[in-house]
Amino acid sequence: MTGRRRVPRREREQQIIDVAVQVFAKRGYHAASVDEIAELAGISKPMVYLYLDSKEGLFLACLRREADRLVAAFQGAAATGGAAPELRLHAALLAFFAFVAEHRDSWVVLHRQASELSEAIAAAVAEARRAVLAEVAGLVLAGIAESGSPLGDEDADFVAHALVGAADSLTDWMASHPDQSPEGVTLRLMNMVWVGMGRVLEGEVWGPERK
Amino acid sequence: MTGRRRVPRREREQQIIDVAVQVFAKRGYHAASVDEIAELAGISKPMVYLYLDSKEGLFLACLRREADRLVAAFQGAAATGGAAPELRLHAALLAFFAFVAEHRDSWVVLHRQASELSEAIAAAVAEARRAVLAEVAGLVLAGIAESGSPLGDEDADFVAHALVGAADSLTDWMASHPDQSPEGVTLRLMNMVWVGMGRVLEGEVWGPERK
Repeated sequence: MTGRRRVPRREREQQIIDVAVQVFAKRGYHAASVDEIAELAGISKPMVYLYLDSKEGLFLACLRREADRLVAAFQGAAATGGAAPELRLHAALLAFFAFVAEHRDSWVVLHRQASELSEAIAAAVAEARRAVLAEVAGLVLAGIAESGSPLGDEDADFVAHALVGAADSLTDWMASHPDQSPEGVTLRLMNMVWVGMGRVLEGEVWGPERK
Repeated sequence: MTGRRRVPRREREQQIIDVAVQVFAKRGYHAASVDEIAELAGISKPMVYLYLDSKEGLFLACLRREADRLVAAFQGAAATGGAAPELRLHAALLAFFAFVAEHRDSWVVLHRQASELSEAIAAAVAEARRAVLAEVAGLVLAGIAESGSPLGDEDADFVAHALVGAADSLTDWMASHPDQSPEGVTLRLMNMVWVGMGRVLEGEVWGPERK
């Protein structure tokens, strides 16, 4: 091992996490082996344990990093996407779908595998989801305020839950339609939900008695 | 135990499942004990194992029964909810939210706990979800056909994914707003999504450049 550059701990950890995200996404948590992760990362298995404690610790580190990245992408786009709330919502949704399209492994780890595991892991995912829900509810509330509608916090929170659930579920649709761009998916969703909300804000109400 | 009525196997199994759904919902899969389930069901632990094989077998039986009930309620309402696709969709969504409101334990087992477990269990849940997605996509496609729009299968499948994801996520909103009726939740969702889809079918398109 002479001649090998001494890599700072933080950098080494990130390398291990990069590899681990791929392996967890490909094999699933239970089938993934720390041996394989160590080999692909080019370091010894004891070193992996030294850095990240256990297989669960390693998974949790993957999950936290990818959740932070996804939330940061979403919030960054919402902050800089434009003046109107609907433009910021559009930018944030686009950032979400683009992240999922570009980091499919990260999304598989966050979306499919995290819920299989411990309470600590479920809590980390729930926290990321709450951050996104709060962000979306804020944008929707801003849209409501601009429209002068009497709708309020409860309505904004309702729309945020619907939008975030729809976006989650649409990642499955996206996976089975690889020809569709994140831009296209975002526009379809905005069309469905934001246009509908616009009508509702204008006072249009759908009711089962109307037909 | 003299004097106790001999209960047919099928009926006994249903009693055990009734109790098990409550215990799994309250404790979570891992913390739930077969001892407690046997005690509350008023039968011996070996009898529980005789009927339902293992803790996982018992959970799978709970999951299958509740998934079948939910899918049947949804499909039944869709079949009888009216002539127009939007009325059938409304009836089906209402059946879903009413099921979740009335059978909160069943929903906790289906929605929160199933994903923690084995592949057999995840597969049972995925199958129920696919049945619901296909049903919704069919209704949306019927709505599209009635409108004379050029949208097709792919679009209907997109809307179905968005709607089913939104409905899943809104069960959390419903849990934190116990004063809201399933009828109210269904109307809000129909207003948001179906009204928006109506506009889209009429050719209205939202784009980020428009503001």
